[in-house]
Amino acid sequence: MKYTVITGASSGIGYETALAFAARGKNLILVARRLDKLEELKNEIHNINPELDVLPCRVDLSVTEQAYNLYNKLKGYEIETWINNAGLGESSSVTDQNLEKIESMLRLNIESLAILSTLFVRDYSNVEGTQLINVSSALGYATYIGGITYSASKYFVSAFTEGLAKELELKSAKMKAKVLAPAVTETEFEKTAQDVDEFDYKNFMPKYHTAKQMAGFMMELYDNDKVVGIVDESYNFNLRDQIYPIIG
Amino acid sequence: MKYTVITGASSGIGYETALAFAARGKNLILVARRLDKLEELKNEIHNINPELDVLPCRVDLSVTEQAYNLYNKLKGYEIETWINNAGLGESSSVTDQNLEKIESMLRLNIESLAILSTLFVRDYSNVEGTQLINVSSALGYATYIGGITYSASKYFVSAFTEGLAKELELKSAKMKAKVLAPAVTETEFEKTAQDVDEFDYKNFMPKYHTAKQMAGFMMELYDNDKVVGIVDESYNFNLRDQIYPIIG
Repeated sequence: MKYTVITGASSGIGYETALAFAARGKNLILVARRLDKLEELKNEIHNINPELDVLPCRVDLSVTEQAYNLYNKLKGYEIETWINNAGLGESSSVTDQNLEKIESMLRLNIESLAILSTLFVRDYSNVEGTQLINVSSALGYATYIGGITYSASKYFVSAFTEGLAKELELKSAKMKAKVLAPAVTETEFEKTAQDVDEFDYKNFMPKYHTAKQMAGFMMELYDNDKVVGIVDESYNFNLRDQIYPIIG
Repeated sequence: MKYTVITGASSGIGYETALAFAARGKNLILVARRLDKLEELKNEIHNINPELDVLPCRVDLSVTEQAYNLYNKLKGYEIETWINNAGLGESSSVTDQNLEKIESMLRLNIESLAILSTLFVRDYSNVEGTQLINVSSALGYATYIGGITYSASKYFVSAFTEGLAKELELKSAKMKAKVLAPAVTETEFEKTAQDVDEFDYKNFMPKYHTAKQMAGFMMELYDNDKVVGIVDESYNFNLRDQIYPIIG
């Protein structure tokens, strides 16, 4: 039995992506800190399709040791798709940024993503039909002055994943590695990034996608052979080859 | 009395940069894991100029806690220039990479650099004549297939530092932030990256700079108002404005 792993599945793009994979009949391993939200999602999935196997996993990926623990725990499962979607933002200038929050963000956005990508690629790169999708950001291709360290963490994700896609291609590996690069998406992201209780996308953001729309783009990327799925300045979704130059 | 801080000063570009700042009459705080090498460097500096105050600091910046300890230890010193030069490479495919080494690399190249940059900017951004120089790599602008995770860590450094330079400019801060992006340089880098005892640049690298040449470029960047000093494909040194797009 094959599984799709989605980190950060308790809300936003991860939550909606889980529903989209469930609609395709995929068994799911759902990863997040909030087990109650994962249980809700599991119920919602079983309302769509009671046959699916859904495994909620309570993990805090800002603690890198837990990334290893998660992967070891899943050793007995056959994984088809791994989506590193979990991510944290920090909206402030470098001068004012909270370093404790920055460290958690770097561990989650960069370290755990690199660790989980490496472990998955090591075991599955020669298995037909496997995919690794890492969620970066449009800000992984253009630096946002109000969140420079966040942007830089997403440059890491973009360069790492685009490079990995080329490495796999050069090795004629069977796995595909892909980058999803959303722009503003209506999720819990801004609440966490700005440390506020509520954030009103309708009134404060000139343009944005809903999490459901982004999950739709995720599925377009999943179905396509291109490496990068990126939201452009006009909020159109583009499927592209690697954006950053590669030397070998 | 003002000081120039150089991390990774025990060899290579850091060592030669310390000598170059000493030749300009700058007092130095030298940071590295190998205290004996820093003591050698201190002696060499005192042969050039016995008047200079030189403070060797034994610190392992791949342990992020030590980045905070270093900064706190230096609270009593007036710092003019801070150079985050310490960095570690890893030459292998993502599939084969050693995750323990990757974690040390990410902590050093990304986390400690972000922490030390933030702490320095927080205290000194409005002090006339201050500079933060972060050492990235030409591979922070083009991904190298034989060291993708290393490249991606340098994309972080480039985007972070270029963004910070813009943040400081927009705030009319007095500090300048700059990125040095060397290509292949004859140092201990390849030995560490490839886990070998010796590496013969003359026989294995079609082109490279010596550490002394790169320290010369570092001083050109230091003397100039441009944000990026990058070695191009022809091994010419170029001073440029930000390379990555910035949105505000």
